[in-house]
Amino acid sequence: MSTTRSNPEEQDLAVQPDAGLLSPVRVGTGVEAAVGDTAWLQAMLDAEAALARAQARCGTVPSAAAEAITAAARAEYFDVRELALAARRTANPVVGLVAALTRLVDRQAPQAAEYVHRGSTSQDVFDTGAMLVAARALRLIVADLRATAASLAGLAAAHRDTVMAGRTLALHAVPTTFGLKAAGWRHLVLEAAARLQRVADEGLFVSLGGAAGTLAGYLQYAAQARDGAGGRSAEEVVDRLAEAFAAETGLARPVLPWHALRTPVTDLGAALAHTAGALGKMAADVQVLARTEIGEVAEPAGDGRGVSSAMPHKQNPVLATLIRSAAVQVPALSSVLAQCLPAEDERSAGLWHAEWQPLRECLRLTGGAARAAAELTAGLSVDRERMRDNLDLTQGQVVSERLSAYLASRLGRAAAKELLAGALERARPAGRPLGEVLAELPALEGVLSGRELAQLLDPQQYTGAAGALVDRALRG
Amino acid sequence: MSTTRSNPEEQDLAVQPDAGLLSPVRVGTGVEAAVGDTAWLQAMLDAEAALARAQARCGTVPSAAAEAITAAARAEYFDVRELALAARRTANPVVGLVAALTRLVDRQAPQAAEYVHRGSTSQDVFDTGAMLVAARALRLIVADLRATAASLAGLAAAHRDTVMAGRTLALHAVPTTFGLKAAGWRHLVLEAAARLQRVADEGLFVSLGGAAGTLAGYLQYAAQARDGAGGRSAEEVVDRLAEAFAAETGLARPVLPWHALRTPVTDLGAALAHTAGALGKMAADVQVLARTEIGEVAEPAGDGRGVSSAMPHKQNPVLATLIRSAAVQVPALSSVLAQCLPAEDERSAGLWHAEWQPLRECLRLTGGAARAAAELTAGLSVDRERMRDNLDLTQGQVVSERLSAYLASRLGRAAAKELLAGALERARPAGRPLGEVLAELPALEGVLSGRELAQLLDPQQYTGAAGALVDRALRG
Amino acid sequence: MSTTRSNPEEQDLAVQPDAGLLSPVRVGTGVEAAVGDTAWLQAMLDAEAALARAQARCGTVPSAAAEAITAAARAEYFDVRELALAARRTANPVVGLVAALTRLVDRQAPQAAEYVHRGSTSQDVFDTGAMLVAARALRLIVADLRATAASLAGLAAAHRDTVMAGRTLALHAVPTTFGLKAAGWRHLVLEAAARLQRVADEGLFVSLGGAAGTLAGYLQYAAQARDGAGGRSAEEVVDRLAEAFAAETGLARPVLPWHALRTPVTDLGAALAHTAGALGKMAADVQVLARTEIGEVAEPAGDGRGVSSAMPHKQNPVLATLIRSAAVQVPALSSVLAQCLPAEDERSAGLWHAEWQPLRECLRLTGGAARAAAELTAGLSVDRERMRDNLDLTQGQVVSERLSAYLASRLGRAAAKELLAGALERARPAGRPLGEVLAELPALEGVLSGRELAQLLDPQQYTGAAGALVDRALRG
Amino acid sequence: MSTTRSNPEEQDLAVQPDAGLLSPVRVGTGVEAAVGDTAWLQAMLDAEAALARAQARCGTVPSAAAEAITAAARAEYFDVRELALAARRTANPVVGLVAALTRLVDRQAPQAAEYVHRGSTSQDVFDTGAMLVAARALRLIVADLRATAASLAGLAAAHRDTVMAGRTLALHAVPTTFGLKAAGWRHLVLEAAARLQRVADEGLFVSLGGAAGTLAGYLQYAAQARDGAGGRSAEEVVDRLAEAFAAETGLARPVLPWHALRTPVTDLGAALAHTAGALGKMAADVQVLARTEIGEVAEPAGDGRGVSSAMPHKQNPVLATLIRSAAVQVPALSSVLAQCLPAEDERSAGLWHAEWQPLRECLRLTGGAARAAAELTAGLSVDRERMRDNLDLTQGQVVSERLSAYLASRLGRAAAKELLAGALERARPAGRPLGEVLAELPALEGVLSGRELAQLLDPQQYTGAAGALVDRALRG
Repeated sequence: MSTTRSNPEEQDLAVQPDAGLLSPVRVGTGVEAAVGDTAWLQAMLDAEAALARAQARCGTVPSAAAEAITAAARAEYFDVRELALAARRTANPVVGLVAALTRLVDRQAPQAAEYVHRGSTSQDVFDTGAMLVAARALRLIVADLRATAASLAGLAAAHRDTVMAGRTLALHAVPTTFGLKAAGWRHLVLEAAARLQRVADEGLFVSLGGAAGTLAGYLQYAAQARDGAGGRSAEEVVDRLAEAFAAETGLARPVLPWHALRTPVTDLGAALAHTAGALGKMAADVQVLARTEIGEVAEPAGDGRGVSSAMPHKQNPVLATLIRSAAVQVPALSSVLAQCLPAEDERSAGLWHAEWQPLRECLRLTGGAARAAAELTAGLSVDRERMRDNLDLTQGQVVSERLSAYLASRLGRAAAKELLAGALERARPAGRPLGEVLAELPALEGVLSGRELAQLLDPQQYTGAAGALVDRALRG
Repeated sequence: MSTTRSNPEEQDLAVQPDAGLLSPVRVGTGVEAAVGDTAWLQAMLDAEAALARAQARCGTVPSAAAEAITAAARAEYFDVRELALAARRTANPVVGLVAALTRLVDRQAPQAAEYVHRGSTSQDVFDTGAMLVAARALRLIVADLRATAASLAGLAAAHRDTVMAGRTLALHAVPTTFGLKAAGWRHLVLEAAARLQRVADEGLFVSLGGAAGTLAGYLQYAAQARDGAGGRSAEEVVDRLAEAFAAETGLARPVLPWHALRTPVTDLGAALAHTAGALGKMAADVQVLARTEIGEVAEPAGDGRGVSSAMPHKQNPVLATLIRSAAVQVPALSSVLAQCLPAEDERSAGLWHAEWQPLRECLRLTGGAARAAAELTAGLSVDRERMRDNLDLTQGQVVSERLSAYLASRLGRAAAKELLAGALERARPAGRPLGEVLAELPALEGVLSGRELAQLLDPQQYTGAAGALVDRALRG
Repeated sequence: MSTTRSNPEEQDLAVQPDAGLLSPVRVGTGVEAAVGDTAWLQAMLDAEAALARAQARCGTVPSAAAEAITAAARAEYFDVRELALAARRTANPVVGLVAALTRLVDRQAPQAAEYVHRGSTSQDVFDTGAMLVAARALRLIVADLRATAASLAGLAAAHRDTVMAGRTLALHAVPTTFGLKAAGWRHLVLEAAARLQRVADEGLFVSLGGAAGTLAGYLQYAAQARDGAGGRSAEEVVDRLAEAFAAETGLARPVLPWHALRTPVTDLGAALAHTAGALGKMAADVQVLARTEIGEVAEPAGDGRGVSSAMPHKQNPVLATLIRSAAVQVPALSSVLAQCLPAEDERSAGLWHAEWQPLRECLRLTGGAARAAAELTAGLSVDRERMRDNLDLTQGQVVSERLSAYLASRLGRAAAKELLAGALERARPAGRPLGEVLAELPALEGVLSGRELAQLLDPQQYTGAAGALVDRALRG
Repeated sequence: MSTTRSNPEEQDLAVQPDAGLLSPVRVGTGVEAAVGDTAWLQAMLDAEAALARAQARCGTVPSAAAEAITAAARAEYFDVRELALAARRTANPVVGLVAALTRLVDRQAPQAAEYVHRGSTSQDVFDTGAMLVAARALRLIVADLRATAASLAGLAAAHRDTVMAGRTLALHAVPTTFGLKAAGWRHLVLEAAARLQRVADEGLFVSLGGAAGTLAGYLQYAAQARDGAGGRSAEEVVDRLAEAFAAETGLARPVLPWHALRTPVTDLGAALAHTAGALGKMAADVQVLARTEIGEVAEPAGDGRGVSSAMPHKQNPVLATLIRSAAVQVPALSSVLAQCLPAEDERSAGLWHAEWQPLRECLRLTGGAARAAAELTAGLSVDRERMRDNLDLTQGQVVSERLSAYLASRLGRAAAKELLAGALERARPAGRPLGEVLAELPALEGVLSGRELAQLLDPQQYTGAAGALVDRALRG
């Protein structure tokens, strides 16, 4: 196995597997590039280089060797497909990568070759690389979430008092405002960003355990490097090495090696599932509101976005569609990560390996959804008139709760209930306005003036605390 | 529909559905009782009562009415099965519960009846009840996790230097210690407890939104109660009511009504999935170590635990089995909660309803697993001799990493690798100790004395930083 | 531990766990009763009794003993809750059940007691019981699916030519018919019924393996019963016993004992997930069509169904809501069953146990959804006028595909495309009918008469093969 | 957007996404190539070409045009990455593909261009392509399953009477044979192959619905092609077209268009989840048996397979590890497909799109696992001696079931139980053979001769019907 990009047939094969054709939500986004195979390879190389430099800091690897390893640790020197193919022999891509990196270093700086991957184990390199990938991806995702939240803050403020139908169980319930709706979406998005940021700040760790989590290999080499002398305790050596590795990678230092203690991975999965779902809530609402019959919002168009091949009139809500396609997938993928927690032994024969692709896919899909959400909210158009018109569809029934409360205070609960039920029964089949029917009721004579009735029936005047809630949410 | 426990046939039916026969992991535990239908009913009644008292605090409901409602809000006055049956007509159990509660209050204190569920909506009561149930269940689960962690701390300390085989991909890798293993389990358990505690402390909210999240009904009644006078702004009214409701329930006040912003539910699900998985990791390890051929640990026996009906010699690791049975289920159930995040509208027609049973099941299974873990760790027996004996099974190969490192420093990496590979090839088929084969090698004459070789081959001397890591973890 | 229903406190506890309060979709249905704990207990007792009778048929157990065991094998003689509590000690409910059954038989017919569970193992009894439960539940579910399909056939025929908007990506696409929609729902429902029926006919097996799948225990007792004489080969004995057990239970005989070969369980799970999803598709459509703005269908009302506690005007689509709540849960629960396929050893320490509750829940939720679907389709009302009115909402755009095809044949593809795009751009912002704009175009003078245009724009005349497809589907 | 492979930067990006680095189980396998983006693109082009030829068969498209379209429909003429990037604008890759194909045809045979994708819709092309991909992948997977089954038949026959410990709940239960174990694996594998073959034979359909499932576009163009004359009914036209399309693709013709009736996809998912799990069961067993302490089987080695970077003695069971890594992922991915069944409308805005990647991943992972299984079973080595030795580990306890049955027949059930329990209690702590302890018991004097006892204690003589079951299974 050579490591140079030499075999054109292999390259063709490399193109084949997965260029995003089946996953439009993430194709072409920054996150896609940040978590692709090349990026992952680079992150593993970054881990190898950082490990050498950390050992150099501790004085157990020559600085020149660490520099030579760092110089060689560039993805473009390696053939991703070849490494992937080699990975099938050992069930992970690091064994082959170490061999290839060692050969390359050996050509460039022979005396440094023996310091490659010294004392280490595949999982240390893979997992540290995965955390570096996650760190880079999370930055992009959080940025898109913040952009989304900013757009939504604008929409919430602009539509603080834009009345629309509140809908429950698919039906008009009572009025609400689009401002409150947008504020809710924003709140969810900020909760998602906070969860991801917490993982980014506190939950991304270097992996440093050696063959079975005792760091014995690192200590053995460290002891040999100090000629048996040294005198540092295992604890001191480990502390220094771990701190140096963390400093070199920018990741956190864990309490214990986490080869088989997979909280970092499940935390990531949980936060990403939340994010995808939070964006999915907005997408679900946009799809409802964009329906032909409802028409209260429309996605930003332009540049061929949303066109249909056969129906020239269509302007499909493709961004919401993309977001939803991700929101459906991520919870299941994230559940795979949780299913991998019960990893047996010091390294599981399969549960570790089952994490990789789902973790990447969670990052990629959620990142794609976040990008789509930023685009969607930056250009969402809102149709106030249509919202107002739709509110009239039930001809007054949308404030039945208010009438019910008001009449109860005047007639008693039971009488009010009966009266209103009767009025609704008369209004509905005839398609008559509820107010008209009520105005004819003898029982309401003297109880409710025409002006009071009109006021009670005005949806604009029954938005409860919607405005106050928007204010409260936007302060948060 | 009456609400009294009158119909014996209904009771029989009530017994039938699910008494735990198919879910031994949780049967008879405190969590099972805390999340059962009766407990859930009580929690919803607690929510109704707290809402009335909160409105009384705000002066919009008479105190006497709130007291009467509180007095009536006891689960034993209601027939759970009848309420369940009624729930099928409205897709939730609150509509029927409100009717039954109102009837009961009407009998006991007629003037209070109209204040039941005033201004409210089914989801406010159900979700507040669910959070109360969760709060109670989390207390029990966290207590069991802390007990488990305490036992594990004891095991980790006692076995800080108990050497055993570290296993990766099912095979002996390098030595480790049982102390490090137990410290790892404890670390995971503490991480789980911390996640659950965070949810308990910051993530359990009252639900207060009214029909569609604007609190319009509450405000309408409040305004009427103040005779149109009042003069408080919607914001003030809502603030006071929400704070009072939070105070009465002991739950937190959310930024916005969360009828369709379901972070509290997904946070719970994520933390519970982590917990079940964390306990599952320990269970997976116990099952490996308890195997007949390995025999390094044994579960606590006694009182018929672990017996087989047909094989008198068996002492099955049933606690680990129960834990694992939960760990397999919870991630999928938790993924349902994440799939419900993209709830359309102000209240979803199905996604809200799909949360209930999976949420309860996550609590119940995880709680059962935590109980089993507390029992398991309180009585786990550890067989040091067997651990030591098993380490000898490979006749020295378990320290091949060390030999490899040592010889590399003496012979150079390539020569060392070749020499060791040759020795292993000779040792393995013949079943000979690696040390014996090495001792015969001319190439090692003068390089490695017999004493040095013996020392290198001693697993007890190749545990790396295991002891230091245990110390570090137990300080945490 | 006694087995009689004596302890009132235990009974109270038994009521507590799960009477259906959180799962309205299945509460009160036939399937709920058929898969409840009492039904499951009865099925396990049926398995014990059938096993004794099968052994009697083979002459290795006295007929009188088999009769005595059969007489005692009635669920009402046992306390489900007590058995559930006992199950926690052995991780399955059969060990306790065998003890209780033996005690009961010993009281009623002492000489028969030693033949209880002879040669058997817990899993044989549990799994055979589970298959009996499944068989009973599937009959009920398939019956409801067939009733649903019959109602849908009626709807499809009645509305063969009822034109409505075909909707794709939330927008009006081209016209379709409600008949085709109903025929599609029916087709899915029939596919689901066929899958369940196939499992019922070919996939429900007795479990007969003994302690580890070799039937050694059964053979040992059989050999002893024949006084060492006999002379039958193991194969003959096993054949006779297995055939007799199958005959006594009405289940099929498997090729091999399936303690750890779990195809029967995953087949069940897959068919149930398909069924829940198939019903969910109909529910999703009903929810869309029932929206206030769309209003093309309405669920059957009456008897308080669909009422809201606070909003008297609402008539919630609760049946579709219930169905959807099940459709969201079942795929995840079914995935647990698939995750249990990789069961290690001759009986897994956890994966077997993890199947039970999800399997029951899949049956229960799907059964509840099937019941709701039968109710829904029996009374669904369809509003032809509203469908026709909604088709006009786009003022002709809904047939843009047809115009595009027609104009392409007259003007060439490119010119037609451009012309239509221009017309749409003019029509949309102005809210003008597409036909009106087209009629003004000079380019279409002489190409398209007013009458031709009107015909092309008539949605009723652009339903393609909808009618023919309905006919084809109803023949199937 | 051009379609030629011109942009080198794009190619680099295309390499990046996913060359298999994180999914070693499938890397380099035939299935990987068969379902990759290029293969998928080709399949969609095959669908476009077949559609044109089918229309030519029906006389509504000129034969020359169909030939020209077929000639252009070759993946190597297109840039997958560019098509993927374009897909983000329309949420599916077909809109861009149709544009690119049309441009290419226009260059090569201008008069044919207008017949590209005539009357069609994106989903018809995508879904037909997906079915073609599935058909090709299933052939490969089934072939590997059959090869695996053949190897297992050899192992089962060779080891029909190789005694080993039957293990339940992680402990030795009673003896079994390796032949029965291999026969069980084979049975599962054949069940998986049968399920996949059924889908391949009956469940892969052309998609032919047009814009919203009515085929109106196809009919419109057909009518125009016949100059309004024709005279064929919609039914005839549709029948002919559908039959021709099915004939051209080799796929089946569905009863109804299945844009929103997704049984074909869920059937695929279910069969693949079963297959992955079935292979996972074998992998789980291999991992147990390969453990250092058990050592009863070993994976085929050679060519660097299974090596560790740091521990030269290790020969990791990587094939079982790869299989297990797939078995953990597929159920969750398959559950996504089931969650997409409740697709709203005539085409869902997101649920359709969410299917693509999980479906491909199910095919790819299962295919990779099937390949690994074929390799694993072709070279699995079995250690009879180790199996026999392990059976002695419990010193006779592994046949306690037999002793129990035998003694019951001599002493009565209760007395036998007590006696055996006592003997076990004495034997265990002392580490004494059970036979030795029993031989000392006065109660057994005269009941059991030394020779009888030895026979009863011989595991080889307590394999029940294992041999007969192997024979039975191998006949099947």
